[in-house]
Amino acid sequence: MPAYKLTVAYDGTDYCGFQVQPNGPTIQGILMKAAVDLFGEDVTVTGASRTDSGVHSRGQVVVLKAIKAIEVYKVPLALNMRLPVDIVIVGAEEVAEVWHPRYQTHIKTYSYKIYNGSFHYPQDQRDSYHFYRRLDVQKMQEAGQLLVGTHDFESYSSARKSVEDTVRTIYKLEITENNDMIQLDVTGNGFLYNMVRIIVGTLMEVGYGRRDLDDIRESIAHRDRSLTGKTAPAKGLTLVEIKYGAYGE
Amino acid sequence: MPAYKLTVAYDGTDYCGFQVQPNGPTIQGILMKAAVDLFGEDVTVTGASRTDSGVHSRGQVVVLKAIKAIEVYKVPLALNMRLPVDIVIVGAEEVAEVWHPRYQTHIKTYSYKIYNGSFHYPQDQRDSYHFYRRLDVQKMQEAGQLLVGTHDFESYSSARKSVEDTVRTIYKLEITENNDMIQLDVTGNGFLYNMVRIIVGTLMEVGYGRRDLDDIRESIAHRDRSLTGKTAPAKGLTLVEIKYGAYGE
Repeated sequence: MPAYKLTVAYDGTDYCGFQVQPNGPTIQGILMKAAVDLFGEDVTVTGASRTDSGVHSRGQVVVLKAIKAIEVYKVPLALNMRLPVDIVIVGAEEVAEVWHPRYQTHIKTYSYKIYNGSFHYPQDQRDSYHFYRRLDVQKMQEAGQLLVGTHDFESYSSARKSVEDTVRTIYKLEITENNDMIQLDVTGNGFLYNMVRIIVGTLMEVGYGRRDLDDIRESIAHRDRSLTGKTAPAKGLTLVEIKYGAYGE
Repeated sequence: MPAYKLTVAYDGTDYCGFQVQPNGPTIQGILMKAAVDLFGEDVTVTGASRTDSGVHSRGQVVVLKAIKAIEVYKVPLALNMRLPVDIVIVGAEEVAEVWHPRYQTHIKTYSYKIYNGSFHYPQDQRDSYHFYRRLDVQKMQEAGQLLVGTHDFESYSSARKSVEDTVRTIYKLEITENNDMIQLDVTGNGFLYNMVRIIVGTLMEVGYGRRDLDDIRESIAHRDRSLTGKTAPAKGLTLVEIKYGAYGE
């Protein structure tokens, strides 16, 4: 059974997230439809990350299994012809049938964009969150550095049922600013549900003085969602890359 | 008569350019409608640059004159409420009634984005041009440097009737590449009709080997449109900034 590892970019604005669900169009659902049209019945589409409603991607990884085989270089073009303009297959390679996009060691990078100026430019409205109160990027950076490393991130998760293991490693967290656009880039070996958005929301509260470095220290010393800030809106979040293998490989 | 200098950002994709014309919606037309709704009749809207159909802006300057006076800080908010999401007033200041956005010394900066990878990401499709053939950015940079300075740019203009003075000064021309996205930024004291897009089209031909540095030298030594390349598509072009005063002030 042929298996293709696809890299999928999308503008998530008009979708109810990655995973198929009954309330509206999803990335997985649209991919399934295009794949059935191309390969015929008996297709499976498995994503590496279940991005939420409104979250974007430049590097989602999806494994597509079909009965029919198609030369791998033709797969992106053939699928893109069958996909709407806001979902694009940007890469493809063949993998072993047993290869699973979630059950392999991998490193994920997300970015989050906050527009901190007075008026939100039309070009930036789909993938950045407009926040009026002035943020101190220097302070956000200092606070962000406290999260780098291996910690129990239970306080940074909004999972409804508790996950057994909430320890994760953040390898890198950088915050830059350019013309009032603040961008946070974070790389780690896995993220809990809503973890990036809670990190952003918490660091924003540091940025406007509602929290300080001690609050951040406390939030990782304890396992308590009430010690962290609001979950930042989905629209600012983009899944940038999923790299298979250990960090630095 | 109160006069307001407005900075206007727009996604030009769905407009027939800046200037009012009978074939479809224009930026000027939409601004007029919003201004009439806010200020009442007898409003004039004058733009600094007549951007073409499909060209974008982060820094168009428009002067709005009205009979009624409104406190200047309220003007952007009040107009934005009356504008579609793809046109946003991002700044406003009061100016003298005689101040004209084209008849003052000013410096303009444009940028042009070319996506040179295999598959165009959905996030980049509205404001960059997808070009498949591999471009040599180093060579494009070298060629671009020959255009910096004061030259007769007649070869880089597609004006139907000849303009008396086709001498212009380019202060700065930079080409950078990041993840297959090539960006050209150019600053000058004025640009002829289609000049930036012809510069881009010509440097692209240098980038894939169709032209060399001598062709560029010849194109500025003579005044002949046939010595330059194709006009690059509008969608990659953004008017970034108009600064009043001389360069470096």
